Amino acid sequence: MTQHSERILMGPGPSNPYPAAIAVFTRPVLGHLDGEFIELLDDACERLRSVFRTSNALTFPVSGTGSAGMEAAFVNVVSVGDTVVVGVNGVFGQRMCDVAARCGASVVPVEAEWGTPLDPQRLLDAHPAPAVIAVVHAETSTGVRNDLAELGAAKGDALLVADCVTSLGGIDVRVDDWGVDIAYSGTQKCLGVPPGLAPISVSPRAVERILHRPRSWYLDIGMIADYVTGSGARAYHHTAPISMIYALHAGLGTVLDEGLEAAHARHQECGGLLQAGLEARGFELVAPAGARLPQLTSVRVPESRLPAATDEAGIRRELLHRYGIEIGGGLGAFAGKCWRIGCMGNTARPRNVTLVLAALDELLE
Amino acid sequence: MTQHSERILMGPGPSNPYPAAIAVFTRPVLGHLDGEFIELLDDACERLRSVFRTSNALTFPVSGTGSAGMEAAFVNVVSVGDTVVVGVNGVFGQRMCDVAARCGASVVPVEAEWGTPLDPQRLLDAHPAPAVIAVVHAETSTGVRNDLAELGAAKGDALLVADCVTSLGGIDVRVDDWGVDIAYSGTQKCLGVPPGLAPISVSPRAVERILHRPRSWYLDIGMIADYVTGSGARAYHHTAPISMIYALHAGLGTVLDEGLEAAHARHQECGGLLQAGLEARGFELVAPAGARLPQLTSVRVPESRLPAATDEAGIRRELLHRYGIEIGGGLGAFAGKCWRIGCMGNTARPRNVTLVLAALDELLE
Repeated sequence: MTQHSERILMGPGPSNPYPAAIAVFTRPVLGHLDGEFIELLDDACERLRSVFRTSNALTFPVSGTGSAGMEAAFVNVVSVGDTVVVGVNGVFGQRMCDVAARCGASVVPVEAEWGTPLDPQRLLDAHPAPAVIAVVHAETSTGVRNDLAELGAAKGDALLVADCVTSLGGIDVRVDDWGVDIAYSGTQKCLGVPPGLAPISVSPRAVERILHRPRSWYLDIGMIADYVTGSGARAYHHTAPISMIYALHAGLGTVLDEGLEAAHARHQECGGLLQAGLEARGFELVAPAGARLPQLTSVRVPESRLPAATDEAGIRRELLHRYGIEIGGGLGAFAGKCWRIGCMGNTARPRNVTLVLAALDELLE
Repeated sequence: MTQHSERILMGPGPSNPYPAAIAVFTRPVLGHLDGEFIELLDDACERLRSVFRTSNALTFPVSGTGSAGMEAAFVNVVSVGDTVVVGVNGVFGQRMCDVAARCGASVVPVEAEWGTPLDPQRLLDAHPAPAVIAVVHAETSTGVRNDLAELGAAKGDALLVADCVTSLGGIDVRVDDWGVDIAYSGTQKCLGVPPGLAPISVSPRAVERILHRPRSWYLDIGMIADYVTGSGARAYHHTAPISMIYALHAGLGTVLDEGLEAAHARHQECGGLLQAGLEARGFELVAPAGARLPQLTSVRVPESRLPAATDEAGIRRELLHRYGIEIGGGLGAFAGKCWRIGCMGNTARPRNVTLVLAALDELLE
């Protein structure tokens, strides 16, 4: 293995990173307490506030991938016996239930059929006084968008936790306007940065409920806050992943230089072209119009158009080997039944849509 | 901030990375299920087996920094009420107690004075049947090496957990020979890779005791094993931090190309030169001869030689600003009393020792 292949990453993530996010990896490594690094970290956090559309002081990258962000969101505010209402219409809603249960929560799942959006009112009605209501904004396993604003407006005393792993940078995420108390994301989707960090934002209301000595030391936000925030000396908690934070900082710079609305519009354009192209070919999209994510499209495998002796995995293999295009298979209940085609971050370019559609035309009958 | 300063990183980590570890960051990002990436991951794990000197099948990089490795080590094998004996002679022994307690363990700390090594027999005598005995091999807060071999030979039914964050790649670590059941490390010390991953190795004996549904989902080794090991299809757990794994793979390549013994000898040479130089100047080393780490030297601040109106932090600032040299301050009980000077990874070059000693000569009276 002398060099890796140059993939067009059209799966559910990672996406192709923005060039600036890769270029900064070669910057000299600084110590995690070096003033130059703290300045860059502060700036990265400020950029995160811009993309989360929040003024939350406690906004920073968790030192792990998106799932570490999920765990951080629950482990810091959920005590044993707390009721946590979770919307479940895909793998990541299920994962939220699992993570909350391991925190000792009494989990109340509110299900919707995979491929359909959650009904906010059913979530609000599920329990009279939950500690947390948790929803996946952009369900990566189905391509469905779940609404957050209605939940935020009517959440009462509950904290609203939102998984924005696949939404942030691709569609509108309005943490403050929508009343989201804890939002977390990942770097490797619409932010166009390699995987490795989980941006998180915590409202003052949620900060008040942060547990002293949560079950996790590594993800103890109360302790981490002494490092990532404040204007004075920073207290060492764990060694920050310096190089990945360079990449995040630069990737966010690319997003904000383009403009958040422009980045959203680009994702919308690419997703729209892809979905129109798939439907024009007679393929069935999983998510209904109105709840369809532009950045991640789930489409039923067109069984009747598979060449003889070829299964859906065979088509994905051919896409990868002949064209260097990665698309994703189905997850969970959708395994073997769906493809997931992403247009995220630097992958969200019309020419990539043109290419993947043309390649499918060549491979299918 | 148009460019970062080029630091000589002589603190407790991060160290200066090997050039190859940085160069590979520019490789194209691959998907975490791409065969090319799986091949590289497998190779990185095999290289980790070489540096850990183990045949443990379950050897892989945890997707977080060294402290995530610590948490993974405890959370996967410690049940509520289990007795965990922890050697404590510095900050990282204390941290082990904290992490184990959050897993619900009954923690039995066995203390030794900071700056002195632990007495293995006292650890073995501390409890008749602990579930776990845990020790920091190289205590980064004091520069002391604690012995593991005696513990492994006499551990009985207990699992031996060893923090090798600062030892791996710098001094001998023999997971199999010493009977270590779970060893974890960090990338940013003697492996010469930026911070962000925690290599871990788990013995077959420890694998048998891995909990079903531990408190952490993100660090659930039983689930992660379905992704990182095996010869067939890999099950997605979380998105691997692709670029950091490139860096780890390449950094380990540099270490193994040099040869593990040669790398150890280089760390030994540099640490010996540094310690001899400090003692020749009348400075007092914290760790006693025989338990001194070559890669990290704790030295008492020479109060009598500080210029008027300058404190120890002022000297560190001058080292950073005038010479671009980062050294560490004291942690915990040693704050304000000690400096910690590292010679790790690519920083472990005699010329860096010469420079830091000469710079101290210029700054001190």
